[in-house]
Amino acid sequence: MDNVATERMAEESHRQDSANLLIFIMLLTLTILTIWLFKHRRFRFLHETGLAMIYGLLVGVILRFGVHVPQNMSNVIPSCAVNASPATLLVNVSGRFFEYTLKGEVSRGKGHQVQDDEMLRKVTFDPEVFFNILLPPIIFHAGYSLKRRHFFRNIGSILAYAFMGTVISCFVIGLTMYGFVSFMKAVGQLGGDFFFTDCLFFGAIVSATDPVTVLAIFNELKVDVDLYALLFGESVLNDAVAIVLSSSIVAYQPEGDNSHSFEAMAMLKSFGVFLGVFSGSFALGVATGVMTALISFEFTKLRDFPLLETALFFLMSWSTFLLAEACGFTGVVAVLFCGITQAHYTYNNLSPESQDRTKQLFELLNFLAENFIFSYMGLTLFSFQSHVFNPLFIIGAFVAVFLGRAANIYPLSFLLNLGRKNKIGSNFQHVMMFAGLRGAMTFALSIRDTATYARQMMFSTTLLIVFFTVWICGGGTTPMLSFMSIPVGVDSDQDSSAVMADGLQRRNTKHESAWPFRIWYNFDHNYLKPLLTHSGPPLTATLPACCGPLARCLTSPQAYENEGQLRDDDMDLILNDGSFDAGFMYADVTVSTDATRSRTVSSSRSVRGGGDPAGHEGGLERELVAGEREPATRGTRLVLPTDERAEEPPGAVILPLPPPPSATLRAALTPDVEREPRLQF
Amino acid sequence: MDNVATERMAEESHRQDSANLLIFIMLLTLTILTIWLFKHRRFRFLHETGLAMIYGLLVGVILRFGVHVPQNMSNVIPSCAVNASPATLLVNVSGRFFEYTLKGEVSRGKGHQVQDDEMLRKVTFDPEVFFNILLPPIIFHAGYSLKRRHFFRNIGSILAYAFMGTVISCFVIGLTMYGFVSFMKAVGQLGGDFFFTDCLFFGAIVSATDPVTVLAIFNELKVDVDLYALLFGESVLNDAVAIVLSSSIVAYQPEGDNSHSFEAMAMLKSFGVFLGVFSGSFALGVATGVMTALISFEFTKLRDFPLLETALFFLMSWSTFLLAEACGFTGVVAVLFCGITQAHYTYNNLSPESQDRTKQLFELLNFLAENFIFSYMGLTLFSFQSHVFNPLFIIGAFVAVFLGRAANIYPLSFLLNLGRKNKIGSNFQHVMMFAGLRGAMTFALSIRDTATYARQMMFSTTLLIVFFTVWICGGGTTPMLSFMSIPVGVDSDQDSSAVMADGLQRRNTKHESAWPFRIWYNFDHNYLKPLLTHSGPPLTATLPACCGPLARCLTSPQAYENEGQLRDDDMDLILNDGSFDAGFMYADVTVSTDATRSRTVSSSRSVRGGGDPAGHEGGLERELVAGEREPATRGTRLVLPTDERAEEPPGAVILPLPPPPSATLRAALTPDVEREPRLQF
Repeated sequence: MDNVATERMAEESHRQDSANLLIFIMLLTLTILTIWLFKHRRFRFLHETGLAMIYGLLVGVILRFGVHVPQNMSNVIPSCAVNASPATLLVNVSGRFFEYTLKGEVSRGKGHQVQDDEMLRKVTFDPEVFFNILLPPIIFHAGYSLKRRHFFRNIGSILAYAFMGTVISCFVIGLTMYGFVSFMKAVGQLGGDFFFTDCLFFGAIVSATDPVTVLAIFNELKVDVDLYALLFGESVLNDAVAIVLSSSIVAYQPEGDNSHSFEAMAMLKSFGVFLGVFSGSFALGVATGVMTALISFEFTKLRDFPLLETALFFLMSWSTFLLAEACGFTGVVAVLFCGITQAHYTYNNLSPESQDRTKQLFELLNFLAENFIFSYMGLTLFSFQSHVFNPLFIIGAFVAVFLGRAANIYPLSFLLNLGRKNKIGSNFQHVMMFAGLRGAMTFALSIRDTATYARQMMFSTTLLIVFFTVWICGGGTTPMLSFMSIPVGVDSDQDSSAVMADGLQRRNTKHESAWPFRIWYNFDHNYLKPLLTHSGPPLTATLPACCGPLARCLTSPQAYENEGQLRDDDMDLILNDGSFDAGFMYADVTVSTDATRSRTVSSSRSVRGGGDPAGHEGGLERELVAGEREPATRGTRLVLPTDERAEEPPGAVILPLPPPPSATLRAALTPDVEREPRLQF
Repeated sequence: MDNVATERMAEESHRQDSANLLIFIMLLTLTILTIWLFKHRRFRFLHETGLAMIYGLLVGVILRFGVHVPQNMSNVIPSCAVNASPATLLVNVSGRFFEYTLKGEVSRGKGHQVQDDEMLRKVTFDPEVFFNILLPPIIFHAGYSLKRRHFFRNIGSILAYAFMGTVISCFVIGLTMYGFVSFMKAVGQLGGDFFFTDCLFFGAIVSATDPVTVLAIFNELKVDVDLYALLFGESVLNDAVAIVLSSSIVAYQPEGDNSHSFEAMAMLKSFGVFLGVFSGSFALGVATGVMTALISFEFTKLRDFPLLETALFFLMSWSTFLLAEACGFTGVVAVLFCGITQAHYTYNNLSPESQDRTKQLFELLNFLAENFIFSYMGLTLFSFQSHVFNPLFIIGAFVAVFLGRAANIYPLSFLLNLGRKNKIGSNFQHVMMFAGLRGAMTFALSIRDTATYARQMMFSTTLLIVFFTVWICGGGTTPMLSFMSIPVGVDSDQDSSAVMADGLQRRNTKHESAWPFRIWYNFDHNYLKPLLTHSGPPLTATLPACCGPLARCLTSPQAYENEGQLRDDDMDLILNDGSFDAGFMYADVTVSTDATRSRTVSSSRSVRGGGDPAGHEGGLERELVAGEREPATRGTRLVLPTDERAEEPPGAVILPLPPPPSATLRAALTPDVEREPRLQF
């Protein structure tokens, strides 16, 4: 009978778990429906993530104050003479052994309260879930959909903001907070220990800006591409920096555990840890990406099976994360660089269907994970039970975050402007300052450990910072942009009128790029691309003559077909003067005015297929725009000499039709076409 | 310092977890690459699931005998005076409270052995994962990709096999095993208790046939559609029956706990539980499906945002599962019927892009989950540590499974043939007998509880049955089919030459279908479809005149556009004589011989979009076939009067081109087209 009772209880617990998860699913469903309403009505003051947070808050309030679950008082507290807390515990219950796994420490003095709010505790689930399940797809998607051309054009500035800027911000915030905390201690407002390392840790976790909210808005408004690239690049990379930084600070804590004070040696060691972990993760991510590219390159016929291809791609990307975690590196960083590598090499080897599938899959995963995190954040404000809201600390934190962001943006922009040709204007700097939202990563880092008083206070404060920045700064982005008179509606990729300017701009790209990147580009284009993908010139053409046999054995038959047309989607990065035929471009543009009646048969494949997953970035917004565009624009886009048209011979692209019979014309101009984004004409 | 040590240990454990998961990912990757090799070389004797199992076995052997992880001896066994095993345990370790959650009972006498093989134990993870994460996508995909026309044509026989057949099989196996077990007890070969209810439980879990392996082979070989429908329908539905049956048996155990004997009252009660749970799950699944259809119908403009649509679809489908589990019903059953409903109603409301996305998403999830389960099965043979292999019991089980399957198929086929017009031939019966593989569901049900001696013996035996059937019966399917002289290569959906026969066949469909289904069809077509989807006639046309105002307010503007063309994808089910224009069909077929040069502009959308997700079922195999087909066949397919062409007016479909210039012809005939499955011409 005892056995049956246990089974019943396990069943009950399972039902409770299902119900809890159901709450989140319902929240997400509600969010989606409301987002749709917002999109439909063109509300832009509140982004979907802010919305998800509000819904989360509401449900949190209901769960906290509205629901009273009858308690079963079966939580026994045996006072065992155990002098350690092992990961697994075997309990001998009158001759039968039950296995228990460690869930974590319950905060002091809470021992007896715990029973009262078991349900809330259940809703607040394991923070590791964020790091292992929700964050990887978000970060991978960020890497996979990176607009590499703009990213690499600004790579120097991005690295400066992301690395130096985050470190500066971390220290500025840490020092400011240390000042505040010392003051609080003097005044007697502090209820527990708060060491200098805690301050630094706080600085590390709130320095990571969020790549989600503002950028979605920027993408929708088509803000200046350089500003977009700077903010996006910074916020993607500084997520990685923040993770490594915070774990380095924790790692070097044990040494100074008794003192919790600043030590030069320990700091240096921490810096070493930082470099080691970062470069290790970077190398691992790139290695897995390259391996995937090699597999999909070698197993050429895998292209016939998009399902297998997609599955392989997904598994390899996921294994990057696991491998990095298993090796003690940072999975999130590895996954980011894996995503960039996959987009750069593997993507070219995939079949068009798999290119679509992988993009859509990661877009969906990203969307779900993102909204889940944000609604969970809202929920936590009420469901988390060890909040420590200290007004002084909160004020201090807001001031510190402001100072930290300012110390990141303004001095670095000044220094960068000394070297940059196209300067980062002061209005750009103000927007970057303003758009430093804190989001998923800050939250995930702060919820990871909430055992001590210091960490609890940090967590509560972080939550408020996230709420404030997402709602106020996120909502204020559009007014801010117009106030700073930053042009919106710029889109160098798609606008037909911008083509010429764009062509000139690209020529400049070369001069803008620093020489290390030009060397890298040439190496990548001549050796890596041919070795790893089916695009680019054959190795036989690029390697010196002495390596002929080796080159021949490494070159795929497809590569020879590419010979003679050196343009590939790498024009994204830097352009070789010789490879760009201006005459061809003009010809294209001329034809494109006739695009409504032209048909591009053989090019459809490569237009959809070749190139850049970033082309579909922000698909949500793209759909909105696509719905409004005229068929002519759509046609024009096809014949633009964009870098997406990598593989077909120039002559076969445009097939002008004879004057169509009325039936054809009707069909060609029917709005039906607009409802079918795949049928390009 | 204590805190730090705990953190280190948690980190170590996290790394171990990542490594374990990595093993599975690597296994899957390896499986995918080998599958590809098999597909490429046309090996058919071993299906991918069998392959996954072999790899799992190998890794299991390596983990068991090759890897020795140094043990940390930190598993303390406190002998507490606890007289119950609560779900949560708070342990007081010198003033600090640690929370532990119950993982399960460790088998008796194993208490001290456990420490030795912690790693193996970690690889063998929670069986609930199967039920909550891996099974739902598989079952949903089965429902979503169901070929409804053939399914509903044989619905009576399928229900008979799945419900009556499974119950018969369960009892035959249970009784046979009871005989064997009694004999073993008499001989002294039994090492523990084995009650009659255990025998029945065993009968329930091994009666579920697997919809995965054989059907993939059938699909690839294009076996007779009726045979396919019978086997698929049976194996999908009997999964559900087996779950409900086994949990009913467990549920009625407590009552007869002291006797474990057969009681008429308890049996009746169990039957009531069975009916209640099954119908509850059914209702819930259908309800969620209908709700999704309503949402996607009401929020018409959601079509502009495929990402939102897909996410909503995914969340609603998942919430069905959770809702059912939270209510105490069976999630898997609910998800199956939700999938069928989604395919029937919601699918028609989705935008073409979302139709693709949802299909591809669930195809991928299904593929991953399936292969994961099978490789895990292989792994378990060596990693599970409480195997009880009893030769007599195993022999008995094999005999019982054979008898049970025979008692299901042959008598029921005989009875069904009395009522069926197109009889189930004896060669069909032999194949159905032979193709009764046991797979994922049997495994999942048997691993759910392995606490007692009886359950452990069952689990080990079940594992062997699964291995045997998947490798021997699965591998022998192709020879078996040719031995039974069952025609392969039949495909009524796509073959141009089969159109006429198919047309006639459809006419017969009506007469074959029983009258309840005809009534249901009319109700569904006239009222439900218009109410829930954008296809079908407007309600104003089908409702009686008195309901005019109501009908007008419930009908969407799109519905009026559909008026006058009553054909919709429901022709899948049963055909109304009047709605099928034979003359139109002839015309189509004539034109189709010229299809290579015809263009279908406005129809592309609906050909790809309208209709049936089952059209893409087994996409893996489809790709293989598509790669080999001539362009002409592809063209032909477009103009077939298949039920997929639901929405466009007949006249606008075919746009014959003037004699094409050579460039166009070259482009039109280039193999490039074959590599682009979306660009239909």
